[in-house]
Amino acid sequence: MTHPPASFQRARSAEAKQARETAILEAARRLGRERGIREVSLTDIAAEVGMHKSALLRYFETREQIFLELTAEGWREWSAELRAQLRACKTADPAGVAEAFASTLAARPVFCDLLAQAPLNLERNVSLEAVRAFKLVTLREVDLIGAEVHRLLGLDQHQMLDLISTATGMAGALWQMASPGPRLRDLYTSDPRLGHAIVEVEPRLRRILTAFLVGTSTGHHVT
Amino acid sequence: MTHPPASFQRARSAEAKQARETAILEAARRLGRERGIREVSLTDIAAEVGMHKSALLRYFETREQIFLELTAEGWREWSAELRAQLRACKTADPAGVAEAFASTLAARPVFCDLLAQAPLNLERNVSLEAVRAFKLVTLREVDLIGAEVHRLLGLDQHQMLDLISTATGMAGALWQMASPGPRLRDLYTSDPRLGHAIVEVEPRLRRILTAFLVGTSTGHHVT
Repeated sequence: MTHPPASFQRARSAEAKQARETAILEAARRLGRERGIREVSLTDIAAEVGMHKSALLRYFETREQIFLELTAEGWREWSAELRAQLRACKTADPAGVAEAFASTLAARPVFCDLLAQAPLNLERNVSLEAVRAFKLVTLREVDLIGAEVHRLLGLDQHQMLDLISTATGMAGALWQMASPGPRLRDLYTSDPRLGHAIVEVEPRLRRILTAFLVGTSTGHHVT
Repeated sequence: MTHPPASFQRARSAEAKQARETAILEAARRLGRERGIREVSLTDIAAEVGMHKSALLRYFETREQIFLELTAEGWREWSAELRAQLRACKTADPAGVAEAFASTLAARPVFCDLLAQAPLNLERNVSLEAVRAFKLVTLREVDLIGAEVHRLLGLDQHQMLDLISTATGMAGALWQMASPGPRLRDLYTSDPRLGHAIVEVEPRLRRILTAFLVGTSTGHHVT
């Protein structure tokens, strides 16, 4: 019986590690979708993936690093879909661009939840290297999205950063308002004085981004 | 020696209770300003005000209720200042209205921090009655602010709610990005690739709200 060469073993082991990491991220995403990110602990993720917590910590530093990694994945995946939609826009149309941002974000509830959690809770309990890697992913995607928006609407660097931070900041904020959990949702619907506490993410985000882009384009041509 | 009448004792006791509550809220605000809301525990607040934690819980349900009460106070105080500035605006000027929103919010860092924390963390660990009372305060202030904005720019109900949720949502989101703590701030300033991770609340909020209001007014006149 011969042993496989060391390089093959390393590859197998790297593959196994990758498979484990993927399984952990998928379990965290599944639980986050079901109950909201804030309700998911490291112990929950370990149980879902069938590992002991101490074994899980060989793959990720903390609960927050798992969700920060999901946030980075969310940026790459959302950006690809958004840019595909923007590339399909042939004319400079603020309403069409706003629609592309609003519909792609509203279709990704876990990403919206993560967008609000990242600066408040996730970036604070991980190593500096994990934050650096996360920020480099988001800034790269911001540049890629910005290039498409520039092509369509001629926004400058400031306006492009304002647009993307408004889209992602409001997607996070509106999603949190729109998803207060069953207990508060019952309260808001049962007390007619609280009607305005009920928020719908997509139409409000579309209106806000349309107004922002119309105003930005107006300013762009005037000044 | 005569005893004071019972009604006097009740008044004294109500006064003492009020004074205690005020002292607790002030201690929580002071600690929140120094280190950020997320870093302040119930034990910290009790120590700051010189009470045992169990005694403090006779005045407030949870840590979150203390901060939710500070958020409600923040809404009343910010709204009064903002409306005073808006009343001083004689003409319909999107840039002037945006400036009033951005400058009054940026001048209130603890309120900005609380605005982001409220839907994510604060509304979730308090009684329904505490959430109801909080929501009624914010919706009343939204109506009062909306009336001033309507007088100046003729926004409809949807547009007014969009404006106020963008102003408060982005004040919270931008403040969190702008206040990552000393460890992350050092990272962002030391790595030139991360320059865009550094955010300034007031100029960005002013630009976003100006564009939003110019775009909304444009749409308002066109349709």
